[in-house]
Amino acid sequence: MKTLSKVNIFGGAQSIFSHSSEACNCDMRFAVFTPPEHLHGAGPHPVLYWLSGLTCTEENFIAKAGAQRIAAELGLVIVAPDTSPRGPDINGNDVPDDPDGAYDFGLGAGFYVDATEAPWSMHYNMYSYITEELPTLIEKEFPIDVARTGIFGHSMGGHGALTIHLKHPDKYKTCSAFAPIAAPSSVPWGEKALSNYLGTDKSKWAPYDATALLQNYGASKAHILIDQGTADQFLETQLKPEIFKAAADKTGQALSLRMQDGYDHSYYFIATFMEDHLRWHHKALMQAT
Amino acid sequence: MKTLSKVNIFGGAQSIFSHSSEACNCDMRFAVFTPPEHLHGAGPHPVLYWLSGLTCTEENFIAKAGAQRIAAELGLVIVAPDTSPRGPDINGNDVPDDPDGAYDFGLGAGFYVDATEAPWSMHYNMYSYITEELPTLIEKEFPIDVARTGIFGHSMGGHGALTIHLKHPDKYKTCSAFAPIAAPSSVPWGEKALSNYLGTDKSKWAPYDATALLQNYGASKAHILIDQGTADQFLETQLKPEIFKAAADKTGQALSLRMQDGYDHSYYFIATFMEDHLRWHHKALMQAT
Repeated sequence: MKTLSKVNIFGGAQSIFSHSSEACNCDMRFAVFTPPEHLHGAGPHPVLYWLSGLTCTEENFIAKAGAQRIAAELGLVIVAPDTSPRGPDINGNDVPDDPDGAYDFGLGAGFYVDATEAPWSMHYNMYSYITEELPTLIEKEFPIDVARTGIFGHSMGGHGALTIHLKHPDKYKTCSAFAPIAAPSSVPWGEKALSNYLGTDKSKWAPYDATALLQNYGASKAHILIDQGTADQFLETQLKPEIFKAAADKTGQALSLRMQDGYDHSYYFIATFMEDHLRWHHKALMQAT
Repeated sequence: MKTLSKVNIFGGAQSIFSHSSEACNCDMRFAVFTPPEHLHGAGPHPVLYWLSGLTCTEENFIAKAGAQRIAAELGLVIVAPDTSPRGPDINGNDVPDDPDGAYDFGLGAGFYVDATEAPWSMHYNMYSYITEELPTLIEKEFPIDVARTGIFGHSMGGHGALTIHLKHPDKYKTCSAFAPIAAPSSVPWGEKALSNYLGTDKSKWAPYDATALLQNYGASKAHILIDQGTADQFLETQLKPEIFKAAADKTGQALSLRMQDGYDHSYYFIATFMEDHLRWHHKALMQAT
């Protein structure tokens, strides 16, 4: 693990690291915020994993979400990985990208799945990376309290957080999302990514569709928080929280879906409600056993 | 004036506008935050002008500084202009840039001066733009309380804020800076910009050098706040706050120069201390008569 940068912010430290990833078969980057030692000691600290949306790297969240102020106060570690494999792989070839150069597939659009289709399967294994390889590294290198782990994210990453929580509710005990792609099998972003990464047999998509997971696995014990802006340009075509909400109602999943009047899909929306999410996770994680 | 974007954030509105600037002889962009009406009514509101540093546009501050949360609470309007003229001018030629393509001169590096040297003088008139044209437009278009106007900024923009306050202490009643280029006539960034924009006769630089202005105009009635990170990579070579501090001590300028342990030159540093600056300005502006 190599430290690319480390700076002070709100009394804590914001760092960016790179490491050689087995799951993605290339170097991967992730950001980690650690809270002020003079307030919270050396740990172990509760930890949140943040999954970013389409086009993002490990930098968007740490530069724009305004999370460090609250994380410093509450004593939270926040891990924010990149959204896809990137760069030259170990054979010297570039990690493949969308042949059309679009923003919604390939680089910056890993969708937190393990690809089964060539050429994507050699690198696009973000699901294993996020749920196995990265947490193992984080547990080894940082003073975190594994029993107090939560997950949250935005858009594609909100979808990732929902699916990972629903599949591993005992590992990721709390879950929230900003404007998640709540039913990816039913919208253009999800259909493009899932058909390319997983093939056109839609039964293979179910393990990566939050609505399908709720129906198949049932409700988690957590109370999930979702914020969604009503002025989000992707709300009706790509996000569809009402489909996930209907599945939650049907399965008894505790869910607060808050429609935020006039907010869009940007980090201005995320920053506005970040404090609510961090306090929501912290409160639940401190009660976790 | 054309609205390029307008989004909700912390109950207020963050907008970006463009307009045809006479001073800069090209289209210019600026960002404006207006606070929530349900908290603060329709105004008039106190207003702060934020001047950004080298390489920035009107977007860096609004995306990364985390200012809107506090401005929404306090009821402040914040205006954040671009840092230089840009784009095609009215004759169809591009606004000139540094011939070497460097980041510290030309586009993104207007240094808040009125250039006297060709080819820069046709467009690089940021001093007149910031102190005359832009405030006139803001006063006309937004519900601001002109008698409660302050100015602040970062690095090149911290320098700009200091100089503009010291020259117009009755117009810009409060002033603060993050890591300002405190003595531009004595450092490489300032020497390059001022010699190109104003010519090599250093006597022409004095109206744009905060330390020289203090010596020539004397202290303002304001209490100036400066935050400076001790781990700032530019502290010793480009910023030199100790020179400005010595001039302040000599002239009786009230100044709090806070050396912040381990902080660098980035927006992570700015975000950490933004709340202090906004409360500092707000308190003083509410006492202004």
